[in-house]
Amino acid sequence: MNYCSHCGEKVTLIVPPGDDRERYVCSSCETIHYSNPRIIAGCLPIHEDKVLLCRRAIEPRYDKWTLPAGFMENGETTEEGALREAWEEARAKIDVEGLYTLFSLPQINQVHLFYRGHLSALDFEPGPESLEVRLFTEEEIPWDDLAFMVVGKTLKHYFADRQSGHFPMRSEDLVHPKGRDWKPPKPARYTLGNTGPVDEPGDKKS
Amino acid sequence: MNYCSHCGEKVTLIVPPGDDRERYVCSSCETIHYSNPRIIAGCLPIHEDKVLLCRRAIEPRYDKWTLPAGFMENGETTEEGALREAWEEARAKIDVEGLYTLFSLPQINQVHLFYRGHLSALDFEPGPESLEVRLFTEEEIPWDDLAFMVVGKTLKHYFADRQSGHFPMRSEDLVHPKGRDWKPPKPARYTLGNTGPVDEPGDKKS
Repeated sequence: MNYCSHCGEKVTLIVPPGDDRERYVCSSCETIHYSNPRIIAGCLPIHEDKVLLCRRAIEPRYDKWTLPAGFMENGETTEEGALREAWEEARAKIDVEGLYTLFSLPQINQVHLFYRGHLSALDFEPGPESLEVRLFTEEEIPWDDLAFMVVGKTLKHYFADRQSGHFPMRSEDLVHPKGRDWKPPKPARYTLGNTGPVDEPGDKKS
Repeated sequence: MNYCSHCGEKVTLIVPPGDDRERYVCSSCETIHYSNPRIIAGCLPIHEDKVLLCRRAIEPRYDKWTLPAGFMENGETTEEGALREAWEEARAKIDVEGLYTLFSLPQINQVHLFYRGHLSALDFEPGPESLEVRLFTEEEIPWDDLAFMVVGKTLKHYFADRQSGHFPMRSEDLVHPKGRDWKPPKPARYTLGNTGPVDEPGDKKS
């Protein structure tokens, strides 16, 4: 951040009075520009003994398999965000059965939520961000070709919990293997013509 | 938003290519400025048959009672955010026992999370944002003087669940009584000298 989005003057990184951490503050109109973590909302779509995965048509992790998920938008609930992503990425409609996993990724300022649910129809097909959409049994899951760590963890929990038929909500923190002080490279800006945000779910954490 | 925070030129509200909703886009460097919901992380601090509440020393809802909660910061996990707020507002240290409630407030672009936990010591005291910090039995809770709807709902769930000793994680959407299309008045900007963000947890939803 270089300029104030309100008045267009330069911003400075300072600790505002009464605060305890640095914020970008406008040198002219004194607006404080806060930056906060973002939510990625997703689904674990189930049909009989299978789960639905999407093969990514966009970076990052082009060609890798993922559960449908993406940035939650203003004006929607977490569940609406998850259902929208299932539709956008897989043209899938889901009967939600509950919030299932929550992951904090503090180094990339993201919180990921996955909802468990059943496919209400089998007419799914790839949306614009997917090359392919398929149902997988546990044995067929492409474990080595999953796009994001949160996807693998959610699937592992599901197949384990399925044995008891009890699916408690699970919360976990994912810290980068290089340690808590590790920071990802500064992401590129979003510009027209990009295929997608560079810090899509799970990017830069492995 | 009027100006690009990257290059300082004017932004325009348009639907970028490949997108399906309006974003602020820079007319010069083409940066797309996304806006996403924010997370409020909080605690439900318990000691024996009592819960800890804080009387607010800041707007909104000055003088009303609340559970310690506030905006999650970059670089922390949801649980760390909740524990930080308990310390900042009540100098309380908590042994967390689990994520307990999640509320989506789509009209103010917020998601609220509360962690259930026991006070690890009784030397709590008001932090700078609190006038008073006290333990309340169920009978003593100032139901008519609670600051935010999410606080009342979390407390109601807790006292009900306490009877069975089973505390399942609960997720709920809170839509403004005036309907889904109702939008809060545009919040004032954050400027130096404000006592706090104007869209603190639950503000403008009732």
